[in-house]
Amino acid sequence: MVKAKHKIITLTTDFGTLDGYAGIVKGVILGICDSVTIVDLSHDLPAWDIQSASWIIGNSYACFPPGTVHVGVVDPGVGSKRRAIALVAPDHVFIGPDNGIFSQLLHSASSLKAYELTAEKYWRKDLSSSFHARDLFGPVAAHFAAGVSLNELGKGIELASLVKLPAREVKVKQNRVEGSVAYVDHFGNLITNIKKEFVQDAALCQVGKRSIGRIGHSYASSTPGAPIAFIGSHGFLEIAISLGRANERLDAELNTPVILFEGSTHTD
Amino acid sequence: MVKAKHKIITLTTDFGTLDGYAGIVKGVILGICDSVTIVDLSHDLPAWDIQSASWIIGNSYACFPPGTVHVGVVDPGVGSKRRAIALVAPDHVFIGPDNGIFSQLLHSASSLKAYELTAEKYWRKDLSSSFHARDLFGPVAAHFAAGVSLNELGKGIELASLVKLPAREVKVKQNRVEGSVAYVDHFGNLITNIKKEFVQDAALCQVGKRSIGRIGHSYASSTPGAPIAFIGSHGFLEIAISLGRANERLDAELNTPVILFEGSTHTD
Amino acid sequence: MVKAKHKIITLTTDFGTLDGYAGIVKGVILGICDSVTIVDLSHDLPAWDIQSASWIIGNSYACFPPGTVHVGVVDPGVGSKRRAIALVAPDHVFIGPDNGIFSQLLHSASSLKAYELTAEKYWRKDLSSSFHARDLFGPVAAHFAAGVSLNELGKGIELASLVKLPAREVKVKQNRVEGSVAYVDHFGNLITNIKKEFVQDAALCQVGKRSIGRIGHSYASSTPGAPIAFIGSHGFLEIAISLGRANERLDAELNTPVILFEGSTHTD
Repeated sequence: MVKAKHKIITLTTDFGTLDGYAGIVKGVILGICDSVTIVDLSHDLPAWDIQSASWIIGNSYACFPPGTVHVGVVDPGVGSKRRAIALVAPDHVFIGPDNGIFSQLLHSASSLKAYELTAEKYWRKDLSSSFHARDLFGPVAAHFAAGVSLNELGKGIELASLVKLPAREVKVKQNRVEGSVAYVDHFGNLITNIKKEFVQDAALCQVGKRSIGRIGHSYASSTPGAPIAFIGSHGFLEIAISLGRANERLDAELNTPVILFEGSTHTD
Repeated sequence: MVKAKHKIITLTTDFGTLDGYAGIVKGVILGICDSVTIVDLSHDLPAWDIQSASWIIGNSYACFPPGTVHVGVVDPGVGSKRRAIALVAPDHVFIGPDNGIFSQLLHSASSLKAYELTAEKYWRKDLSSSFHARDLFGPVAAHFAAGVSLNELGKGIELASLVKLPAREVKVKQNRVEGSVAYVDHFGNLITNIKKEFVQDAALCQVGKRSIGRIGHSYASSTPGAPIAFIGSHGFLEIAISLGRANERLDAELNTPVILFEGSTHTD
Repeated sequence: MVKAKHKIITLTTDFGTLDGYAGIVKGVILGICDSVTIVDLSHDLPAWDIQSASWIIGNSYACFPPGTVHVGVVDPGVGSKRRAIALVAPDHVFIGPDNGIFSQLLHSASSLKAYELTAEKYWRKDLSSSFHARDLFGPVAAHFAAGVSLNELGKGIELASLVKLPAREVKVKQNRVEGSVAYVDHFGNLITNIKKEFVQDAALCQVGKRSIGRIGHSYASSTPGAPIAFIGSHGFLEIAISLGRANERLDAELNTPVILFEGSTHTD
């Protein structure tokens, strides 16, 4: 048992909360480094949904204190030759499979460094072919939290060699910005990929075929049942319905196009 | 980073466990005060269900050790002018929006003091209009756990000025007590607002139009499938079905009237 | 408040995550021993599903560090005369009702000792008839973590006197091994009771009426949609479908017979 100064490890998986899998990973981590605080980001991702995992990790990590280790394991390729990696951002470390789960980070952060995790002596004995969160990613995160360096845990690799999901594009045109729904949360709120800089001068927003005339301030600035567009808590244009589910009412989902029109030049 | 003596912060929200929102709040709290223990009471409340949040907080907090801070955020009015408040009971502190989420406590506890949280310097920079658990309530709870006083975090306000949901009335009549279902738990158990004092001499209980002749001791004192009324773990009359769902079998739900008849004077 | 050296307590229940029940148990534990780390194994077990609880606890506990206390409470007999027990394995302690919840452990582990928990002074005052996780099991686990011995908390009882669910039998025949599905996880993977020793020489596996020709290495060694049998992370034969739900595709469920044929002697 190694004593570390206080560290946080976050977990983001598609393991669910029924079978004890996330608890097992925590048991293994605490067996290696008993002073960490483990925080669940999500275990309820749809099975194998790497894209949602990437969005959640990429939009949550910066709220944690410097030095936090983020373990992301949505891993349909477990047991294949896909690499195990660590990514280092200035204040945070990310550990998981090389399958695109850190794409959001790779597209948005700079000064990243990548490592392949190769030092088997820091893994659990008898690596299984189906549970690397327990056998590899958890143990490596715990050893890192306990003070083992990434150079001991693996070897530097080219950032460009990592698997990346395609970036979600925003097109800036003369009088409009074209983006799309990047995430639908459990309230049914539609979070787009359009950054807040573009929202300031906007007069009107279009979600799929529906126009939303009010660029407002918050859920509560709308009358119940009426859709509203505003800058959401992640810093992106968000479309919501006060006391209602925007995805259902506006017939929108992941990837639905969203267009933001500037000024008052547009009529629908 | 401020070091506090060991403190507990509980969280009760409608954030769900999919999107990482509760994890983000924990990251922010731990970034301010890294020695707290954070306990989830519930994140699975139906969206905007202030009444259930109020019931859960009001009936759970006393099981936590003195000094615990309870953060409750079911907050459809986030971004509006609704106040952010702290409530102080003799051994516990409650932090959340002024929207009735602490009603159960306000109706049942005494010696309470109220504060409006106004000191922006203890909030997260750039307060969002839609995520005050991350930007205001979490940070304030963390600063309080780290030793900042409520007088520094806000200012005293009149208890009577707080938003309260209507109290759920119990009518005590000559040979009966009339209450209602105050909460339906995930087992389908019907928890009423009738306190255990009234249950002692009771002979018969009526839920909606159904009579339950047996005032028993526990789930297990009933035969499987038969309804039973007994004093539940929160100290209220509870109606359950051993190995079954009482809400479905008895066609009852939140607010269904429940009548408790004394002695053996009543025949149905 | 008693200070213990760092201890872990795991919780496995059917309490769900909506009503605050698991949080309440944590509050009570932390009020007795504030230095424990509490890890949720599962609170999402189907109500009263003792068998699944037994499987999860029995197949997870060994991943936790020595000294961990495992509290399991799926307890339809709460309030009846069923005993409250502690089971001691060489490195782990288990606390819960005597209703079969530790059957998996009782069938597989050796050198166990059993205690009946009888010392009421370590329970919560006014034991309820319906929430012994809060009033008895949680407090006893916390006092044990804080250093109180099992001889103080109860008295030794015969191991043979404990309630056990029937063992799930594996029949070893001349050219085949006959077992069954012991657990279906939330991915739909079918985890059998056939240990890895038997899988080495196997050529073919039959699940219900379906034959699976490929004894592979991992989910990923199969083409998406094709079933594969391999040694799962718990050390048992497991049948999965890469990027799919094996239980639905193979029309299998808990208790479905699984037969493993040795060598290449079998044709279907």
